[in-house]
Amino acid sequence: MDFTLSRRISGVQGSIIRELFKLGVDPNMISFGGGNPSAETFPVAEIAEIIDRVLKDNPISVLQYGLSEGYPPLREYMKQYLAKKGIDFEKNDLLILSGAQQCCDLVTKALVNEGDVVLTEDPAFIGCLNTFRTYGAKLVGVPMEDDGMDLAALEAALEANPNAKLLYMIPNFQNPTGGTTSSEKRAKIYALCAAHGVAIYEDDPYGEIRFSGTPLPPIKAGDSEGIVFYAGSFSKVMAPAFRLGYLVFPKELLQPITVGKQSTDVHSNTLLQHVCYEYMTGYDFEGHLEKARAVYRKKCAHMLAEMDAKFHPDIHFTRPEGGLFIMAYLPGGKDAQPFVRKGIEKGVLTVPGVAFMADTNGVSSGFRLNYSMPSDEQITRGIDILGALTHDYLAEKR
Amino acid sequence: MDFTLSRRISGVQGSIIRELFKLGVDPNMISFGGGNPSAETFPVAEIAEIIDRVLKDNPISVLQYGLSEGYPPLREYMKQYLAKKGIDFEKNDLLILSGAQQCCDLVTKALVNEGDVVLTEDPAFIGCLNTFRTYGAKLVGVPMEDDGMDLAALEAALEANPNAKLLYMIPNFQNPTGGTTSSEKRAKIYALCAAHGVAIYEDDPYGEIRFSGTPLPPIKAGDSEGIVFYAGSFSKVMAPAFRLGYLVFPKELLQPITVGKQSTDVHSNTLLQHVCYEYMTGYDFEGHLEKARAVYRKKCAHMLAEMDAKFHPDIHFTRPEGGLFIMAYLPGGKDAQPFVRKGIEKGVLTVPGVAFMADTNGVSSGFRLNYSMPSDEQITRGIDILGALTHDYLAEKR
Repeated sequence: MDFTLSRRISGVQGSIIRELFKLGVDPNMISFGGGNPSAETFPVAEIAEIIDRVLKDNPISVLQYGLSEGYPPLREYMKQYLAKKGIDFEKNDLLILSGAQQCCDLVTKALVNEGDVVLTEDPAFIGCLNTFRTYGAKLVGVPMEDDGMDLAALEAALEANPNAKLLYMIPNFQNPTGGTTSSEKRAKIYALCAAHGVAIYEDDPYGEIRFSGTPLPPIKAGDSEGIVFYAGSFSKVMAPAFRLGYLVFPKELLQPITVGKQSTDVHSNTLLQHVCYEYMTGYDFEGHLEKARAVYRKKCAHMLAEMDAKFHPDIHFTRPEGGLFIMAYLPGGKDAQPFVRKGIEKGVLTVPGVAFMADTNGVSSGFRLNYSMPSDEQITRGIDILGALTHDYLAEKR
Repeated sequence: MDFTLSRRISGVQGSIIRELFKLGVDPNMISFGGGNPSAETFPVAEIAEIIDRVLKDNPISVLQYGLSEGYPPLREYMKQYLAKKGIDFEKNDLLILSGAQQCCDLVTKALVNEGDVVLTEDPAFIGCLNTFRTYGAKLVGVPMEDDGMDLAALEAALEANPNAKLLYMIPNFQNPTGGTTSSEKRAKIYALCAAHGVAIYEDDPYGEIRFSGTPLPPIKAGDSEGIVFYAGSFSKVMAPAFRLGYLVFPKELLQPITVGKQSTDVHSNTLLQHVCYEYMTGYDFEGHLEKARAVYRKKCAHMLAEMDAKFHPDIHFTRPEGGLFIMAYLPGGKDAQPFVRKGIEKGVLTVPGVAFMADTNGVSSGFRLNYSMPSDEQITRGIDILGALTHDYLAEKR
């Protein structure tokens, strides 16, 4: 049978990153292409201990069907946890969902019709861009600067797109740029969206792994108008394979988002929700986060020091205060794809910025480097190679 | 902010069943309203043993991000397992997904545009009906008989709906009717759909728990035209809270369905995929299934014997060969809702058939009884009460 794909899915391309990952499995390739958290941060012994205990004490409730809304004690605990960051649970509710990716999926399912505009940081996390695409949204990119979106471009995009439904952003240690949206920009972005009646989807998978600078309150903490969705993840603070995250949203949307969850996958796995709850309430979670932050702090500092020493001074790059990524930019807005290909030929994998763009036919001078997965030694060798290439590249351009 | 819900989600009502479940938590209520597998069938000790082992032997691979397609050894093993039931993996592929519910979600995402028709057994599993609704599909019901759909009605529906994309069915021990589609009907349904270019979504969550009669090959096993999607679940053979299932589909759809999975929740939880694989390959899985079947066989036989003895003879009901449900019908096609409400007043919860209909304003004379969750004693007492009500009901009608 010749299947006709739905309009929503036929518009989505296989990801460039997945193609690149095939290169990354070559054991001779130094990969700065990944996006996984560092496995040394997983609390393996504690996870084993908790699972053993809950399967003994409470086997039925961790194995039987559970609630679509999530394991109630974990829901309640996460509300208390986020209330301390300033989020108001008089006006908002919280669901435990299958990772931050599903938070994005269900908000889009509930709000975005085919043909609606979704505004997005540009470049942005490709996983969520693809979610918007699979609901037939039209993506409109707002160019990124080191401290967040270009505000004039955001205002122009809001004016030009009265049918915009959502603005997508990662304010902390953005993927792919590594940059953090400043306090001033957060306030202005909020005011602009509120004035235009556009909801904000605040994706914060990396917020807990800030390793330098001053923590900024989530945009959701100042959401007097009730326009912000806030998504967090257990992937970087517990383990990605748990596939658990949480979504905060205006209370009046509880029914439609819960119906979306039910009709998508009923509920998220219960055993691992118990693990998150027991770990956060019965172990030293803050100490665990501090250890994880120390791992990323060290790795990031090492990569930045190598880049400072070896990259041509005309190559600009971000200096992350948390998260997993640095983005470097070729001068003059030149397409980074040929440079990335040369890196791969020399044995170092990075991801060209175009992979993260709202318009996949666009041009990006950026390339993304991940520091959480490679070893220190791989970082040194890889930046040696890329550094030499930046000098070659700029010598050729003269 | 006043949110405007998407068209797809605003059409979906909260489920009648969820409202009824609130009554079911009353400890004085005898609930035949649920749909959970019997907790005594969960292999708790083996699950604990496997998790302990894989977290020791292989912590990173069970906790780190995994493949969207599923854990490769489990994928391969399930292909071998299903090949023995006659499914061809030259022309088909298989993904491990988050329960059979997500199989339905992703097939609908990939194939069904807003306004497309989905034909369905009527009544049918409400979870999947709601999935179709959340993609804006128009549902057209085909009335059920004890041995599967009314074929004349199916043919008429196919003729009347040239834009039908999918036919949804549960051939084994259907939810809610408990009936099994006969071999003859399977062949005719397949031929009719093939002739009309309509794909079949064969949902088989209960197939492994056949406790009487002769197993019938899945429709997918005779899929010479490549039109059948086949979904199975680990919920009834391992544990529902795992949220794991598998989808078999024509190979050429691997890319769009994988993209749908990525953009929905990246991948399914890895630790529990390892548990399924280790349990199926290293333990007595067939012996485990036999024990589970014995539990359901006994419970079903007990409920049927009580119904034979106590229900008014004018009340027809199905005699399941597997699964979790019996459906009983009031005579003369009369709406069962008042009868169900009377049962609730007397302390016995069942689900009215209308909850499972394509047209939620329709009329159903059926009510669904679950035998997997109540105790033997609850079954006896509950059928006593319902049996007396059937006699009252028919006395009043005279």
